[in-house]
Amino acid sequence: MNSRKLSKRVESVAPFYVMDVMTRAKTLEETGRDIVHMEVGEPDFATPMPIIQAGIKFLEKGDVHYTKAQGLVELREKISTFYQQQYNVLVSPERIFITPGASGALTVALGILLDQGDEVMMADPGYPCNSNLVTLFGGKPVMLSASSSDNYQLTAALVATAWSELSRGVMVASPSNPTGTMIDSVQMKALVNTVDAKKGFFISDEIYHGLVYQDRAVSALEYSDEVYVLNSFSKFFGMTGWRLGWLIVPEHAISAANRLVQNLYISAPTHSQYAALAAFSAETQALLIERKNEFKQRRDVLYDGLKALGFKMADKPQGAFYIYADCQAFTDDSYAFSLELLENAGVAVTPGLDFGVNGPERYLRFAYTTSLAQINLGLERIKVFLQTK
Amino acid sequence: MNSRKLSKRVESVAPFYVMDVMTRAKTLEETGRDIVHMEVGEPDFATPMPIIQAGIKFLEKGDVHYTKAQGLVELREKISTFYQQQYNVLVSPERIFITPGASGALTVALGILLDQGDEVMMADPGYPCNSNLVTLFGGKPVMLSASSSDNYQLTAALVATAWSELSRGVMVASPSNPTGTMIDSVQMKALVNTVDAKKGFFISDEIYHGLVYQDRAVSALEYSDEVYVLNSFSKFFGMTGWRLGWLIVPEHAISAANRLVQNLYISAPTHSQYAALAAFSAETQALLIERKNEFKQRRDVLYDGLKALGFKMADKPQGAFYIYADCQAFTDDSYAFSLELLENAGVAVTPGLDFGVNGPERYLRFAYTTSLAQINLGLERIKVFLQTK
Repeated sequence: MNSRKLSKRVESVAPFYVMDVMTRAKTLEETGRDIVHMEVGEPDFATPMPIIQAGIKFLEKGDVHYTKAQGLVELREKISTFYQQQYNVLVSPERIFITPGASGALTVALGILLDQGDEVMMADPGYPCNSNLVTLFGGKPVMLSASSSDNYQLTAALVATAWSELSRGVMVASPSNPTGTMIDSVQMKALVNTVDAKKGFFISDEIYHGLVYQDRAVSALEYSDEVYVLNSFSKFFGMTGWRLGWLIVPEHAISAANRLVQNLYISAPTHSQYAALAAFSAETQALLIERKNEFKQRRDVLYDGLKALGFKMADKPQGAFYIYADCQAFTDDSYAFSLELLENAGVAVTPGLDFGVNGPERYLRFAYTTSLAQINLGLERIKVFLQTK
Repeated sequence: MNSRKLSKRVESVAPFYVMDVMTRAKTLEETGRDIVHMEVGEPDFATPMPIIQAGIKFLEKGDVHYTKAQGLVELREKISTFYQQQYNVLVSPERIFITPGASGALTVALGILLDQGDEVMMADPGYPCNSNLVTLFGGKPVMLSASSSDNYQLTAALVATAWSELSRGVMVASPSNPTGTMIDSVQMKALVNTVDAKKGFFISDEIYHGLVYQDRAVSALEYSDEVYVLNSFSKFFGMTGWRLGWLIVPEHAISAANRLVQNLYISAPTHSQYAALAAFSAETQALLIERKNEFKQRRDVLYDGLKALGFKMADKPQGAFYIYADCQAFTDDSYAFSLELLENAGVAVTPGLDFGVNGPERYLRFAYTTSLAQINLGLERIKVFLQTK
């Protein structure tokens, strides 16, 4: 057989630029170079021990069959309680779907909402998988340039101005990847109401909730029962490899979501679901708060360090574990600069090009998913590199 | 906010009829009725102990982070070796993607291959999630009526006749769900060559390989390196709840598949991947062969029993754990009949309506995913029911 052409769909998905950085970092490490990794979008902490132990206990019983498509009732009840405690909102377990990661949750939400050609607004810079998934589902992501003065987030005014005949909905992420910035309660309410008035759908990516260092994170659910909320056990709960998240849908979408899940992935991993039952215990939560404080310390050190080196940043980012730093003082090509940093300073970071077309050549994303010692070492190396450049 | 309309995409996905059977069975059980379950498409056996132990051992280390998008190299090497041993074909680990179940594998394959409006041929009767996923990805499943004389499978002649301007490819499943029937080597070769001559893509669902009771199962990879093969740890390996499968792609699709995986699900569950490293050990394989023999015994008892009761079937199905039985002797509405069987005989089975439009009202699917004792009890109950009907 001859090689055949692949779908237009997949040809439209570009590889991530950070892959070049990671591949080169690996090669350097194989030759004995030491690399400080600040490109990784994954907590360095191990999964909390109570969750691990719950997973082991479940496996010891040996019964790892499918769960219901929607997920374990006990887990959905715990999540429901969590929403009442954290946000003072009532979300019935029937509206909660346990998914294979937040990726699975977004796949279900888009399957429910999107038809071919539908436009979805998002902030640029933003997490590239979100817009790529919209494309893969036949939709069209409309990237609105968000400015640092708006916390790199969409605003009600931006959305109202950009709304067109083809617009079907809006997707926000707070705290955001790559910027770590948040949408406050006033802006969230205005956004939800604006989209409501346009009769559009509202998807809120809340996977970094929990990892916030100043104000509390606001859920879109505080302003409407009709929004779609993505969340995950990966980031705050430290369960990345377990592939577990959840999706909250409006009442009228429950049946559709159930049909989609049955077809798309049958059910989320059973052992992960049982393990996650331990994620809300007092013991686990205490440990997670400790880690959050550790992340906060890292953020402060990294922010102050980058500032002292001449990187430009707006206010301290309020959450997640990223700093999106303007490196215009040193380069007008942050991609080339990221490879230079790697080669000459032994520091791996992610170039802005992975996050959109809103001046990405000015930005680098630093992830503080490594120890304070490594962060300090990285800052020191960058300092030496900049002096000799 | 008011309820809004959902996507045409999701409205086109019908609920499974077996859900009515399962819901009613649960209600009956809650009132104390005993039900024989032959509707379940999942092995009743627990995951083999060596796999469980490997999973526990991995969790005890506490490091459950993401793997590479493509999956653990060690696991892909084991699968590569498996293909050499089982089928005498060379499949490099680079062409193997570890996926969240075979559902994840099919999602990736369709993302690589399908654009809006592309037609994909499949056998009717067939597994409904396969055609539903094609619809969800904007494609159009073209269901070709397959006859019992062709083992309910597509033939090269059927495909050649039906091929049109809009046809983009073919998907086969051998052994098949719901029929348990297979494509032999002559027919597989003819099918692959026919689709090749049309310059179409070929997707082969091989998730029931291993569970075959007469001839060996033929892989499409024996006839071409350009086919897409789905497989799974769920059925033969007894790992349903672990959500782990794999996809084999042609060389030229590796880069596209990697980009898709990074966007669609980041990586398959890490603990499941480490556990699956024990799936190919001599100890596990010996256990799986024992189970296969148990399935064969069940098939024989169920087949003979249904035949004696007046159900019509072609040859004994060669694999999987299903018998697709013609119940025309008793009814012209197998859906109503399935609910009667449940209500009056306490036996749960799946109505043909879930598997297509090729005379489904004549068929019931019996799954022998329960013990011989239960199968015999079910047959006895059906006998009494038919006598008093």
